[in-house]
Amino acid sequence: MNWEFKISLPAAPQYLGRVNEKTVILIINFLYNEGIKLMQQVYFFGNGKADATAKDKNLVGGKGANLAEMTNLGMPVPPGCTISTKICNNFMDAGEFSDHLKKEVQNALLEIEKIMGQKFGDPDNPLLVSVRSGARQSMPGMMETVLNVGLTTKTISGLTKKSGDERFVYDAYRRLITMYADVVMEKAADIEPQEGEGIREKLDKIMENLKSQQGIESESKLSAENIKKLCNQYKIEVAKTFGAEFPDDPSIQLWGAITAVFKSWNGKRAISFREIDKIPHHWGTAVNIQAMVYGNMGDNCATGVGFTRNPATGENVFFGEWLPNAQGEDVVAGLRTPNPLNNLNKISDSPNLPSLEDSMPKIYEELDAIQKRLEIHYNDMQDIEFTIQNGRLWMLQTRTGKRNGPAAVRMAVEMLEEGMIDEKTALMRVQPENLDEIMHPMLDVEAEKNSELLAKGLPAGPGGASGQIVFTADEAETWQKNGNRVILVRNETSPEDVHGMFASEAILTARGGMTSHAALVARGWGKCCVVGCADIRISAVDKTLSVNGIILQEGDWLTLNGSNGNVYHGQIPLKAVNLTENIHFQALMKITDNYRKMGVRTNADSPTDAKQAREFGAEGIGLCRTEHMFFDPGRILAMREMIVSDNEEDRRKTIMKLLPYQREDFFGILKAMAPHPVTIRLLDPPLHEFLPQDEDQIFKLAEALNITTEELNARIEKLHELNPMLGHRGCRLGISYPEITEMQTRAIFEATARLIKEKVSPFPEVMVPLVGSVAEFVHQKKIINEMAETVKKETDTQFDYLVGTMIELPRACATADQIAEEAQFFSFGTNDLTQTTYGFSRDDIGGFLPDYLDQKIFQSDPFQSIDQEGVGSLVKMGVKKGRSVNSELKIGICGEHGGDPDSIQFFHKTGLDYVSCSPFRVPIARLSSAQAEVY
Amino acid sequence: MNWEFKISLPAAPQYLGRVNEKTVILIINFLYNEGIKLMQQVYFFGNGKADATAKDKNLVGGKGANLAEMTNLGMPVPPGCTISTKICNNFMDAGEFSDHLKKEVQNALLEIEKIMGQKFGDPDNPLLVSVRSGARQSMPGMMETVLNVGLTTKTISGLTKKSGDERFVYDAYRRLITMYADVVMEKAADIEPQEGEGIREKLDKIMENLKSQQGIESESKLSAENIKKLCNQYKIEVAKTFGAEFPDDPSIQLWGAITAVFKSWNGKRAISFREIDKIPHHWGTAVNIQAMVYGNMGDNCATGVGFTRNPATGENVFFGEWLPNAQGEDVVAGLRTPNPLNNLNKISDSPNLPSLEDSMPKIYEELDAIQKRLEIHYNDMQDIEFTIQNGRLWMLQTRTGKRNGPAAVRMAVEMLEEGMIDEKTALMRVQPENLDEIMHPMLDVEAEKNSELLAKGLPAGPGGASGQIVFTADEAETWQKNGNRVILVRNETSPEDVHGMFASEAILTARGGMTSHAALVARGWGKCCVVGCADIRISAVDKTLSVNGIILQEGDWLTLNGSNGNVYHGQIPLKAVNLTENIHFQALMKITDNYRKMGVRTNADSPTDAKQAREFGAEGIGLCRTEHMFFDPGRILAMREMIVSDNEEDRRKTIMKLLPYQREDFFGILKAMAPHPVTIRLLDPPLHEFLPQDEDQIFKLAEALNITTEELNARIEKLHELNPMLGHRGCRLGISYPEITEMQTRAIFEATARLIKEKVSPFPEVMVPLVGSVAEFVHQKKIINEMAETVKKETDTQFDYLVGTMIELPRACATADQIAEEAQFFSFGTNDLTQTTYGFSRDDIGGFLPDYLDQKIFQSDPFQSIDQEGVGSLVKMGVKKGRSVNSELKIGICGEHGGDPDSIQFFHKTGLDYVSCSPFRVPIARLSSAQAEVY
Repeated sequence: MNWEFKISLPAAPQYLGRVNEKTVILIINFLYNEGIKLMQQVYFFGNGKADATAKDKNLVGGKGANLAEMTNLGMPVPPGCTISTKICNNFMDAGEFSDHLKKEVQNALLEIEKIMGQKFGDPDNPLLVSVRSGARQSMPGMMETVLNVGLTTKTISGLTKKSGDERFVYDAYRRLITMYADVVMEKAADIEPQEGEGIREKLDKIMENLKSQQGIESESKLSAENIKKLCNQYKIEVAKTFGAEFPDDPSIQLWGAITAVFKSWNGKRAISFREIDKIPHHWGTAVNIQAMVYGNMGDNCATGVGFTRNPATGENVFFGEWLPNAQGEDVVAGLRTPNPLNNLNKISDSPNLPSLEDSMPKIYEELDAIQKRLEIHYNDMQDIEFTIQNGRLWMLQTRTGKRNGPAAVRMAVEMLEEGMIDEKTALMRVQPENLDEIMHPMLDVEAEKNSELLAKGLPAGPGGASGQIVFTADEAETWQKNGNRVILVRNETSPEDVHGMFASEAILTARGGMTSHAALVARGWGKCCVVGCADIRISAVDKTLSVNGIILQEGDWLTLNGSNGNVYHGQIPLKAVNLTENIHFQALMKITDNYRKMGVRTNADSPTDAKQAREFGAEGIGLCRTEHMFFDPGRILAMREMIVSDNEEDRRKTIMKLLPYQREDFFGILKAMAPHPVTIRLLDPPLHEFLPQDEDQIFKLAEALNITTEELNARIEKLHELNPMLGHRGCRLGISYPEITEMQTRAIFEATARLIKEKVSPFPEVMVPLVGSVAEFVHQKKIINEMAETVKKETDTQFDYLVGTMIELPRACATADQIAEEAQFFSFGTNDLTQTTYGFSRDDIGGFLPDYLDQKIFQSDPFQSIDQEGVGSLVKMGVKKGRSVNSELKIGICGEHGGDPDSIQFFHKTGLDYVSCSPFRVPIARLSSAQAEVY
Repeated sequence: MNWEFKISLPAAPQYLGRVNEKTVILIINFLYNEGIKLMQQVYFFGNGKADATAKDKNLVGGKGANLAEMTNLGMPVPPGCTISTKICNNFMDAGEFSDHLKKEVQNALLEIEKIMGQKFGDPDNPLLVSVRSGARQSMPGMMETVLNVGLTTKTISGLTKKSGDERFVYDAYRRLITMYADVVMEKAADIEPQEGEGIREKLDKIMENLKSQQGIESESKLSAENIKKLCNQYKIEVAKTFGAEFPDDPSIQLWGAITAVFKSWNGKRAISFREIDKIPHHWGTAVNIQAMVYGNMGDNCATGVGFTRNPATGENVFFGEWLPNAQGEDVVAGLRTPNPLNNLNKISDSPNLPSLEDSMPKIYEELDAIQKRLEIHYNDMQDIEFTIQNGRLWMLQTRTGKRNGPAAVRMAVEMLEEGMIDEKTALMRVQPENLDEIMHPMLDVEAEKNSELLAKGLPAGPGGASGQIVFTADEAETWQKNGNRVILVRNETSPEDVHGMFASEAILTARGGMTSHAALVARGWGKCCVVGCADIRISAVDKTLSVNGIILQEGDWLTLNGSNGNVYHGQIPLKAVNLTENIHFQALMKITDNYRKMGVRTNADSPTDAKQAREFGAEGIGLCRTEHMFFDPGRILAMREMIVSDNEEDRRKTIMKLLPYQREDFFGILKAMAPHPVTIRLLDPPLHEFLPQDEDQIFKLAEALNITTEELNARIEKLHELNPMLGHRGCRLGISYPEITEMQTRAIFEATARLIKEKVSPFPEVMVPLVGSVAEFVHQKKIINEMAETVKKETDTQFDYLVGTMIELPRACATADQIAEEAQFFSFGTNDLTQTTYGFSRDDIGGFLPDYLDQKIFQSDPFQSIDQEGVGSLVKMGVKKGRSVNSELKIGICGEHGGDPDSIQFFHKTGLDYVSCSPFRVPIARLSSAQAEVY
């Protein structure tokens, strides 16, 4: 085995490397001989003094750091110690603990014993400890905890004497057995029982039997004798299940619990939590060993959790819950309904329950003072845990509190107003994703929790939606016209489905990735969308959707969560959105503009989208696709005639039929965005996308062309491509058929001229797509510039415009210096660039992406967040080469990555001038680019 | 207009830039004032002294340089001057000649007049000149020539007096009128007459009429009076056609001729010649003005051409043709049958014609001495032109002679043996393409010239073939078994056609490019193949091929020239091949191995191919594709069962059925190539390529799987991909279905182990395809290494092997340093790398490549010769990054570019260790890589 090591000596250069175990031993021996202390592995805290501080999160985890910090602040924290996160990986590799560690823990225990006046394992005055996880970043509920460690047949009597409450002691013992058996003996031993056969379920069954025997409902009603009996039954069951006794040695209990907590770092739940929250797997967890204090020793005991502000709304009130005579897990597990902490909470949530404020006013006062001090100390909303033991308050934990989107925004803005934080901090307090929750209607969280998952796809358009399923675009339109809310369900969508997608509440597809057609269109409209839902089978003929044996018919209700990809049968209530009235959102958006240096544009193909995006703060259009404009029923026939023409003359004739439509399109968009720039991309997709699909359309088209259907079919066949993504598209079309470029640029410039005459200041930027070599660009630029001159003369108008290109092929990056000599701007098309750099298409990635994520070959979908090492290095190359010949070159990005926070940070570092994204991502892009600047 | 300029002054740095015309004038004035001479534009030669030498080819063209050189050698060359090639582009831009140039030509003419004792335009003693083209590189017959310039109504009498032969003078006049009208008045004026309406045809008709009037057959029989009459009729016809008189001013004739020669540089024929021969269009031609000497002044006059060795066989004999009493064009134009130069030629070619050796023995002796001296002077075979005027020999031209493939090889080897050149020069004397002519049966050149072209496609597999057309692979096999030679005609081929392709003489496809399936397979077998023949329409149902209205039926004869893409109706005779008896070829191949540093491997999928390649000198297999092995009827069913399995267990079961086949495959190939390495690529293509295509196959498969055809169709549908090239293929398959990798590597290692036991020394290199990130490679490497250990244990054998990867995605190049940490070798797959770098697929490039070549956006098909700027820069990046972490990394290339000479040169420069190509390209690769080293 190889070990990573790092030695820093004051007088020598740092030494860093990988060596084998033997060498490690040699090094350690050497260090010992030289009297150099090994890295501290265990950090003590207690009695107002701690080895660590809040800054040592990486070393002792968030919980450990905060316990240390609270201790240093002089707050009442039960003494304890933290085993460093560094030990976690070592332990996973080695499978055992070093003697050195054991000794450090032993020393810390001695300190704790001194402070508590108790001894671990002492029959007369035993110290009991809790063993808890604590990673750098909070992963609430994802790892294991064992409480009451140190309770054995020998120490029970001592504790009983001291507490004078046998029932309490056996109840603690029962809890220890349950947790230990579950966490240490089962989970940490990698035993995977059959469903319902887990040790916890078995023990619960024993408890239930006893309760029904006794005819009581709540376990709090069980007598001391009963619980004692229960403990014996539990131990018998444990021995039966595992073939090993529940350990009666405090030290075995302690190390068993430590092992279990470390191992729980790699539990399934913890791993998937980290994947979602992008927490690196190598961080590891710390382990906190802390003297037990009890909230369940009687009526002057209690336990509770609190937030210094409301985590669901952001309101500045101390918010939380407590339970008298209970242990912390009772509040967290939700077995008993907790009471509100104070009367403010009470009014809103639970009018009839007793608040701590009323029940224990002095302690509440102390707690309130502490929470206020903690929020000010940490300058952020804190999530705290406390226990009251025999009328004395103990602080068990403080950490930065989780909050939802609306709360994050409100807290950031209000803390700024209160002078608690500065603008930069306020900006960093909001996760870009938080804005999604504000901008889109979301499923009710509780209701979603209680619904059964039907299937899972990729979260392609955030927000939630319920609707009745339909299977074709036309049906979607019809149903919607009849007043129904519908969800369009397709294997995949094509541009011909757009009208039906528009009519739907949400879109669900069986195939495709995060940048498939469905995803792109849905996000453009801020519509809920789930794609690549591989488990569903769709029969458009039978109008059925089947998944795992369940068959849904047309009209059945479905609910989608486009933020996590969940699909539910039936309806789930939604939370509505009102952005204009959200003063905190508006305030935050204003702040972003004080910091960000990158411009934010939008990808929009219609005046409506352009207006929407302007309201969200877009400063121009970075990508106006022209192809969607051709699918209107009034235009598609002319487009088709053009495509299947077999000579230039016919092509010219038919394409000119499209001129008035295009001119109108550009007029509207340029006007809606004026005086901001509008980057219009010339026709890009493979022509055969526009071809008729069914016999009826073919017949119509043949008629219009006055040729036989056989002849038409032969021409269509000729246009067929094996790999349309790598085919006759982009500027290749404009080179083969210059008349298309001529028509489109004529439309752009005529619209421009007309707007100038109407005293509007349009600013078109003509973008040539899919350029791989400068010669292609020069060819198209010539046509564009000549057309501009022609239109200027014809209309007797002067106007400005730019001619630039998409950089979306590896070759364009490699020869960006040549292209920059000719182009006035670059716009990185990172969707296509990702496709070609990786050599897979977003349409076909579904076949293997799940395997790749499973096997951790990919950390995330590269179409969602830019692959910085690969695709990103080509972007960097393109920027560097482009600017090397033209330092003023305007460079943007208009792929889907333009709305992804991580990618935006990368683009900022790379020196791009602007990002462009779909309208509903504009606020996220504004925030992200401001954060990138502050970062 | 902007002018490029460049000034080098001894004391100042070189100055280079672009300025406007005004500035140019200022600069020129300045230089004049300073007494600095402008660049020489006209180079004189004559009387044993010339301004230029053989080294000045770039300036005065090949012909001018050689005339100057011959003059300097003291050989009898008519005096003249050469207008520099630099003037050609200037003239094309400006459309006129500068006064400076005119003055230089005038001065040169004065010198010529002095030497010849004649005056240009002098009625009594006129000087006549020829005006000829002369580019850097010979383009025989592609540009224009005007002879007898200076002959006018005024000078005719003087010449008649001097020559004493009125008939000769009017014959010269007739020729001048014809050439001038054709070349200057028609072609150079960009007049494009209707077919058959050209001035040359019109004048020829007048001649024919006169001859039939006179009842004579040969124009040499026309009397002086008749020719005089003819001249008048010619002049009337010229005036009628062009509305302008034939010019009677020697100076107008001269400058008209110069203009026409320059303009002929951009004539259609010249342009397409340059495209084929890859001569840059900006080079321009020089113009040679030379005193006329006449071979048609009587019986002691003659003209001829010669080669210092036989250009068709390479035999070391003076070879050529002559005609008494004729002008040079008579020999070249082939109007009269020429006589052999000497008796050696006579024996073989033309036993009854008089040789120059016999007819004019003294002059022949002089000529023979000159040709010997010229060959030794130039150290290469010379192509010479001479004229004998009144018993005096004049040398008109010498240049390096064109030769065919067999001759090039023989001359190089024999000149080396004769000590005339060294090994390196011998190597450089053979064009890599020359070897194609030696290795493949070729169409008879004369017969091909006389056949009418039916259609033209891309030359995908060199050599020629005739056969009867069939439209399906099965028919090809049946017809072939019945003893027919067939040509398989398809829209495109797929792996399922392979048996039929094998049975065919040649393959013709309507679609696809130089690296389409058909092209790859055909080249692998050295089979003639023409692809992308867009003009043909194939109806597989009717079994017809139609092109331009001609309809061919199954069984009709077709002939393909796979070296130029020509398709002919009917049969054309072939020249056979015998390589082992070709001692010159064998000798040349030996020499290559003394120089080349790069290894040469082959791409081969079968023991037969491997053996063939070894005979050609392959030093291993660089690419053994495993997918073709699955199409055998005995295997395809198991393969299909595996693909459509919907669970791992079934997949494992069915794929193990393939193990014995694969093991046998690898056993054969490893054995055939041992001890050389065999790089075996794991399964690469999208799985659905293997799926059944027709109902019958689907039914069979469903039966084998014991599922309904509906269920099977649903599974097939699920495997459908929009862009298979960018889909679930390459290592993505091995990651989704590790059992495939396991089966394939088990087969490889079991075959290896068995060979070891048989005392053979196999060396497998396992290659993981389509790696985009190091994580993919690591995943597959683990499986491979584990399987190797397993097989070693199971068989109790030790063996070596390597694990490496294809570098065929831009991302692999960008992260090559990471991959090189894990891989033992890289093999660049430049086919796929070209596809992804450019973003177009070789299957779909047909839609726009012709436009790109037409518009000069591409100079050549990037799948044929590697794009050095784009794709090449990624290859360089990959090599640099790979070697940066592993300086010993073995790097090769196994794309189709591995057999392309230009690409090989690039790979040599880039530092690759080997190239791999199809067996029939191996000798070409050996030669090219030796040349790259010498170069």
